[in-house]
Amino acid sequence: MFILSDQPSIANQFLAELRDIHTQKDRMRFRKNLERLGELLAFEVSKTLSYQSKEVQTPLQSAQMKLPVDQVVLVAVLRAALPFYQGFLNSFDQAESGFIGAFRQEDGGEIGVNLGYHASPKLDNKVLILVDPMLATGTSCVTALQTLLQHGTPKAIHIAEHLPHPKAWSTYRAT
Amino acid sequence: MFILSDQPSIANQFLAELRDIHTQKDRMRFRKNLERLGELLAFEVSKTLSYQSKEVQTPLQSAQMKLPVDQVVLVAVLRAALPFYQGFLNSFDQAESGFIGAFRQEDGGEIGVNLGYHASPKLDNKVLILVDPMLATGTSCVTALQTLLQHGTPKAIHIAEHLPHPKAWSTYRAT
Amino acid sequence: MFILSDQPSIANQFLAELRDIHTQKDRMRFRKNLERLGELLAFEVSKTLSYQSKEVQTPLQSAQMKLPVDQVVLVAVLRAALPFYQGFLNSFDQAESGFIGAFRQEDGGEIGVNLGYHASPKLDNKVLILVDPMLATGTSCVTALQTLLQHGTPKAIHIAEHLPHPKAWSTYRAT
Amino acid sequence: MFILSDQPSIANQFLAELRDIHTQKDRMRFRKNLERLGELLAFEVSKTLSYQSKEVQTPLQSAQMKLPVDQVVLVAVLRAALPFYQGFLNSFDQAESGFIGAFRQEDGGEIGVNLGYHASPKLDNKVLILVDPMLATGTSCVTALQTLLQHGTPKAIHIAEHLPHPKAWSTYRAT
Repeated sequence: MFILSDQPSIANQFLAELRDIHTQKDRMRFRKNLERLGELLAFEVSKTLSYQSKEVQTPLQSAQMKLPVDQVVLVAVLRAALPFYQGFLNSFDQAESGFIGAFRQEDGGEIGVNLGYHASPKLDNKVLILVDPMLATGTSCVTALQTLLQHGTPKAIHIAEHLPHPKAWSTYRAT
Repeated sequence: MFILSDQPSIANQFLAELRDIHTQKDRMRFRKNLERLGELLAFEVSKTLSYQSKEVQTPLQSAQMKLPVDQVVLVAVLRAALPFYQGFLNSFDQAESGFIGAFRQEDGGEIGVNLGYHASPKLDNKVLILVDPMLATGTSCVTALQTLLQHGTPKAIHIAEHLPHPKAWSTYRAT
Repeated sequence: MFILSDQPSIANQFLAELRDIHTQKDRMRFRKNLERLGELLAFEVSKTLSYQSKEVQTPLQSAQMKLPVDQVVLVAVLRAALPFYQGFLNSFDQAESGFIGAFRQEDGGEIGVNLGYHASPKLDNKVLILVDPMLATGTSCVTALQTLLQHGTPKAIHIAEHLPHPKAWSTYRAT
Repeated sequence: MFILSDQPSIANQFLAELRDIHTQKDRMRFRKNLERLGELLAFEVSKTLSYQSKEVQTPLQSAQMKLPVDQVVLVAVLRAALPFYQGFLNSFDQAESGFIGAFRQEDGGEIGVNLGYHASPKLDNKVLILVDPMLATGTSCVTALQTLLQHGTPKAIHIAEHLPHPKAWSTYRAT
């Protein structure tokens, strides 16, 4: 499990602005911070992809470069994940996209997954990144994943979250 | 010295597109790739900043977070550095900015530094990041730095480059 | 009805790149073009908002400026509308957002509206902009609007589309 | 002369935030507002370009579209013009770029043009857009133009400014 804020970096500033009651009122900055965190997490996730040496034709000569070969699918949990998803898309600009409709249910504060809407490309042998910044306890995320697997069996699954509640991790580990 | 392409990541894809004679004709993508590399290098540079624990007032409670305390100054070498500089600015959105005018001279392929234009805020005790993506042999970069130091003595200096020629590193080390 | 391409402008270039089979393969440019068209259409829609004179405190003096007073709600029809919606959001950065899940049904080529997912803030007395770039015949858009009106009665409704089929207009007019 | 704020639009909001002493402290929003104004002014300037009917090959058929044929050159007056220039570049993504070094001189508050740095592509028969958001009285802008004309004779010249002082217009008209 990679935790972006484990090592101090400018990402801490973005997180602090997301959490601060003064700056979080600025919707444009709030979205920009989620987007920047998405870009940085995409960079970290990208280090786990498969790479192959390919020939690149430069103006001077041809060069060998290690380039990623996996097809990435980004699935955003609506509505909150969109700016976070946008950040991943800024980095993985050739990724395919899917969406799951979710909304915060009245009782208990848990985010329930609305199974009425899930759209995704085929997932077989692709790298699935589930983008869900507002996870409460993990149950909804597990349900979302189970729903998504109807679209195929990914080669790898990454779950990108922001500020999860400690209870979420125990739910994951038990699944 | 941090070299972004040492560990395979999506940054390799950005670098490959910058170098490839087919994709580098698309000016918008070329600038976007320089910008994305600037954002990632800014993230890496940010790990070297000084951090202090500060109190952040969240909607639920107050939290202690380690936040950067250095004032960053970004100095771009014109004209080529602008999209690369833009990437650094996307990450360090409260940084101050300076510029140095430079142009590629006719004889020899070396980039000469035009000392007729250099604008910078005071640099004393700040972290200076010199953004220069088109370095040829390093001489121009050293001249640029010497010029900049007229504006004060930074606490730390970072030089952000893209695709330097091997000869550049020997020039640096000899300085 | 405002048609952006009626007067030649740089928007024609964006439209041409969206339609051209060569450039439309570049997903990043495709999204960027939808986003830029969204920004320009938002600018045009903004001219129809209500404005009030407000006092702005500048560094030198206070000034009277006519500023928009309407609360804008952007509702995007998924999945295709997201980059187009992003353009509207770039311009209306304080807007609220809603989403409708839709998918292209197998039979007949018409886009059916999946009523399983619609999320929206209250719409009463707000300006609703329905963002739907992939409209086929207009039926789905009318269904989407009828669904949305469960969330309240907007002060004004704008429908932002891209490249509608001629048949769509007759469906609208008959409704 | 086209004045963006003559007709109320969302651009008024951007202008108000640029002028307001509270919001102008947020450097990221300040730059974003200059960028958005640049995009909108580029859209307006684009209506004055020359257009030719060209064939666009779509997935279904080929279509005739009126597309701009002029080569645009954007010249930014440093340092203040960069975010404004970025907005123009977002719209004219295939434009060439030039820069003029300028700085606010100590005496009198006038922005003097530092002739030590001006870099530009050839201007002959191109459309030159001079981007200078911090014009004080117009003298510096006229000097900048005279300097630029060393690089060739443009087909058309546009000057894009933000918040000019009334005195500036009389300087222009007398030139």
